Amino acid sequence: MIASTPEAPYYAVIFTSLRTEGDNLYGETAEKMENLVAKQPGYLGHESARDGLGITVSYWDNLESIKNWKKNSEHLLAQNNGRKQWYSSFKVRICKVERDYGFDI
Amino acid sequence: MIASTPEAPYYAVIFTSLRTEGDNLYGETAEKMENLVAKQPGYLGHESARDGLGITVSYWDNLESIKNWKKNSEHLLAQNNGRKQWYSSFKVRICKVERDYGFDI
Repeated sequence: MIASTPEAPYYAVIFTSLRTEGDNLYGETAEKMENLVAKQPGYLGHESARDGLGITVSYWDNLESIKNWKKNSEHLLAQNNGRKQWYSSFKVRICKVERDYGFDI
Repeated sequence: MIASTPEAPYYAVIFTSLRTEGDNLYGETAEKMENLVAKQPGYLGHESARDGLGITVSYWDNLESIKNWKKNSEHLLAQNNGRKQWYSSFKVRICKVERDYGFDI
């Protein structure tokens, strides 16, 4: 569940959001997007958690891949519904991962 | 709950973790660290969510502030307990936020 990413540098998109009430097809679309994003060139993995606040971090090879995913037609529809229905607020942060380290038992 | 951050560039530390069973004073220390981190020079805010996987992102003015927080003596004790007791695995990613955008209803 912790994304296995290559040696830095690579890129991260931090998506932080607060949901509105009700599902309104959010769950179905979220699942569809999870499957779709995994097929995108340059996609390296993602991590996701929600308890009130939702945080999804996706990892990418380069900025071009991030731009292409943002322009994907099905993803554009989802982004549109996100603004119209699913989120009361969100923030997207495009980052360069400069260094990382970790630990496994 | 979504961190209010200044205009990019700034820095983000993405901390992704899986917990072990039991509390073992984790809750108490986590609260203490939340209060302590907020007083550090260069700290800009943080966001946190856990449902199985835990993701905490803290935001910083510069890399020096991140290094100083990592070396803080109380934080070093917490990091040590993290490796010994609280986490079965974790990953820390140090990032430069190059661009951001958002939305509020």
